[in-house]
Amino acid sequence: MIVTDESLQKRSLVNFLKASLRGISQVVLIENAITGFIFLIAILFFSYSLAIIAFLSAIIGTLTARVGGGDEDAINQGLFGFNSVLTGMALALFLSGPHQWIIALIGAAIAGILTAALTYFTRNSGIPMLTFPYIILTWFLLLASYRLKAFNLRSDLIPQGLADWKLTVGGDINWLHSFFNGMGQIFFMDNPISGFLLFVGLFWASWKIGLYAILGTAVTLALAYFLGADHDLISAGLYGYNAILTIIAVSKVFNSGHHPLAFISGIVAACLTVPITASVSTWLLPFGVPALTMPFVLCTWLFWQQEKSCQSFK
Amino acid sequence: MIVTDESLQKRSLVNFLKASLRGISQVVLIENAITGFIFLIAILFFSYSLAIIAFLSAIIGTLTARVGGGDEDAINQGLFGFNSVLTGMALALFLSGPHQWIIALIGAAIAGILTAALTYFTRNSGIPMLTFPYIILTWFLLLASYRLKAFNLRSDLIPQGLADWKLTVGGDINWLHSFFNGMGQIFFMDNPISGFLLFVGLFWASWKIGLYAILGTAVTLALAYFLGADHDLISAGLYGYNAILTIIAVSKVFNSGHHPLAFISGIVAACLTVPITASVSTWLLPFGVPALTMPFVLCTWLFWQQEKSCQSFK
Amino acid sequence: MIVTDESLQKRSLVNFLKASLRGISQVVLIENAITGFIFLIAILFFSYSLAIIAFLSAIIGTLTARVGGGDEDAINQGLFGFNSVLTGMALALFLSGPHQWIIALIGAAIAGILTAALTYFTRNSGIPMLTFPYIILTWFLLLASYRLKAFNLRSDLIPQGLADWKLTVGGDINWLHSFFNGMGQIFFMDNPISGFLLFVGLFWASWKIGLYAILGTAVTLALAYFLGADHDLISAGLYGYNAILTIIAVSKVFNSGHHPLAFISGIVAACLTVPITASVSTWLLPFGVPALTMPFVLCTWLFWQQEKSCQSFK
Repeated sequence: MIVTDESLQKRSLVNFLKASLRGISQVVLIENAITGFIFLIAILFFSYSLAIIAFLSAIIGTLTARVGGGDEDAINQGLFGFNSVLTGMALALFLSGPHQWIIALIGAAIAGILTAALTYFTRNSGIPMLTFPYIILTWFLLLASYRLKAFNLRSDLIPQGLADWKLTVGGDINWLHSFFNGMGQIFFMDNPISGFLLFVGLFWASWKIGLYAILGTAVTLALAYFLGADHDLISAGLYGYNAILTIIAVSKVFNSGHHPLAFISGIVAACLTVPITASVSTWLLPFGVPALTMPFVLCTWLFWQQEKSCQSFK
Repeated sequence: MIVTDESLQKRSLVNFLKASLRGISQVVLIENAITGFIFLIAILFFSYSLAIIAFLSAIIGTLTARVGGGDEDAINQGLFGFNSVLTGMALALFLSGPHQWIIALIGAAIAGILTAALTYFTRNSGIPMLTFPYIILTWFLLLASYRLKAFNLRSDLIPQGLADWKLTVGGDINWLHSFFNGMGQIFFMDNPISGFLLFVGLFWASWKIGLYAILGTAVTLALAYFLGADHDLISAGLYGYNAILTIIAVSKVFNSGHHPLAFISGIVAACLTVPITASVSTWLLPFGVPALTMPFVLCTWLFWQQEKSCQSFK
Repeated sequence: MIVTDESLQKRSLVNFLKASLRGISQVVLIENAITGFIFLIAILFFSYSLAIIAFLSAIIGTLTARVGGGDEDAINQGLFGFNSVLTGMALALFLSGPHQWIIALIGAAIAGILTAALTYFTRNSGIPMLTFPYIILTWFLLLASYRLKAFNLRSDLIPQGLADWKLTVGGDINWLHSFFNGMGQIFFMDNPISGFLLFVGLFWASWKIGLYAILGTAVTLALAYFLGADHDLISAGLYGYNAILTIIAVSKVFNSGHHPLAFISGIVAACLTVPITASVSTWLLPFGVPALTMPFVLCTWLFWQQEKSCQSFK
């Protein structure tokens, strides 16, 4: 059989699309094109335009890495896609006005460059970059809106001095909503059905990680309630998404065994996202930008090293 | 003679307590269990409950490192204790309400994990972590109080916009108080007698370092007065504790010789804590958290490398 | 011929002065004593006292590095001078009152130490420090003014809560002024003739880099206008100086070839300084300090690695 140029090209295109879909699944640290596709369906269910932005951003991030000469394996695993996906979606959501789409897609491209740059600078330290490039970039571009007319910040992102802040704990919690919204908020969605679909994608990739994520989220939400977090924020899933991401990140390091200490430290790490989310939100209050996945990044950095030394016990 | 299991256990417990006391002495970068014990007496003189928290935190930090598989030598030197001691004490002091003690002790445990994580990430850079883990963690947990009902911030930690700030230089300075309080503030105490007892502990470990610390503090306080710092803050020792820590840190690097440039650079480093304390306090004003030992950390980082290249002259 | 001690000393003094002048030219990443001299003339044209501070700061930075045992080659290339030059000038300009000159010169000395320290700590990472030491130090020393009477901040550096901020786009732009002021603002000057003289110095060192800088600045200014930046700030050159520095930094990496991707990425990097300048200014608004060359540092860090991987294509 002769492999024609055309079939090679087709295969290359398929590979490229798979890499892009893996970029979407890598948002939850999973390398699985089908999971990425299910995630895309979940986003589509929430908003057509957001799903298009997510897909285009994944493509742009993967393309930027390829043009910039990134590591081929890492590109195929989707590791240059997820920061672009999140940046594109965040900018499309938190900005408004006529230029929001263009800014979102350019942001997705810059996210690819920033991911490459930060990965390069920290290559010797063993610190995983996770979603750090997306967070920094999104904060920066959102705040550019105060100086550039072309950037219009969504009107509910209001900076506030800490001196003027009053904590309200508020009304009832819908626990089922807070649970699925916690999954949904990973992609900025407060829609329980989209959250459910995301769980389907997660279970497709690994039912073990899925169950572990459910357990971790349940414990974390209970803790957030017990520590007296704002009930509305709990219901909206804003105390859940960092916990889910953290527990997936920590469990990934342990996929080889069932070390009891490792199991517990994953739950502890998820619980720690509650005070860290509270704290990061407070730091950012005077600047009026959301915490994004910073609590997850900080918590995972804190426990990653711990896991490594735990593994050496086995 | 046969070593029984019981005697081994007893010895192991004594070693563990010694490591914990060294954790207290390591707050001033000294490895000496008796100095740690004298420090504990000094804290006991100031407040029973604070001394208990300090001792429990030292034990928790040391225990966390042992469970987490930290380096045995470093644990015995107390290097996993001092960040826990400071974190526990700071949280117990700056928080109020029914949960402050539990939060303080959990904070002490997290400080142990954070110290291990940061030490791991910077292992190739040669940057000593000093009290950096404690500072970052304490700032984070104090600010979580704005979002979680279970965390109650002490009512005098008030955030303030820089635009509203007026510098008052205020009344008289009691130089003797400002001197001993400078030592006392290392452990958050504005009690001259406790400060005096801390000096006793320091001289026990090394009278050379003790004398050097006295000289450095005297020069620094004079500079703070000359530069027009708030007299009340000088009297409370808040311009002194970072200077003492810095001069001990710098002199530690030079314990092998009497290099004149080294001697001077220790004094210069101590003096630099004055503008750096002023600046860090300003940065933190909108967030309402205290500067803690950040000026010491920044100043020591600045001079540590310098010392190394100075040493290469000899 | 016998080389006398006297002639050796003379030569050594000439070398030292040349290294100091190269410290001035290194502000724009160029190693050329004559360019440094032309820059000094440009500053002299703007202000006698500022030129004296610039020259003294260059000497102090070079001297500090020599006393501290810095690398001889790096010292001769002026790499320990430029952070001191900028720190001295910035402190002299942004502080007022009787002590501003002394603080400026002491600041220049500390800048030398800080440059050495940061270079040492990042020696394995391959991150160039650029003007980062100067930026951090100047921000710190300016904010010390809120706590120390001896530091008087210039009255137009007013901190402001983001909630109170209104963006005004303002009146007409004088494009020629905004162009030359962009060059001038590298040394804090809003005088088109001084800006012109700086361009002369740049062309003396390399007309290729000069032309590239002109092209990059033109594209950047057009983008700033298109994105709706404040016209007054554009005219004052405040959207230009970071672009010029960035394009010089990026083009330096490519002086060996004419790679088309490299050429474009230099322009893209310059363009990116516009949103980054907008964003950094916003972050700093509550603290009331200027952005200095932080946008240039961030943008160059972002693209430096990219360039390296681009070069590997050739």
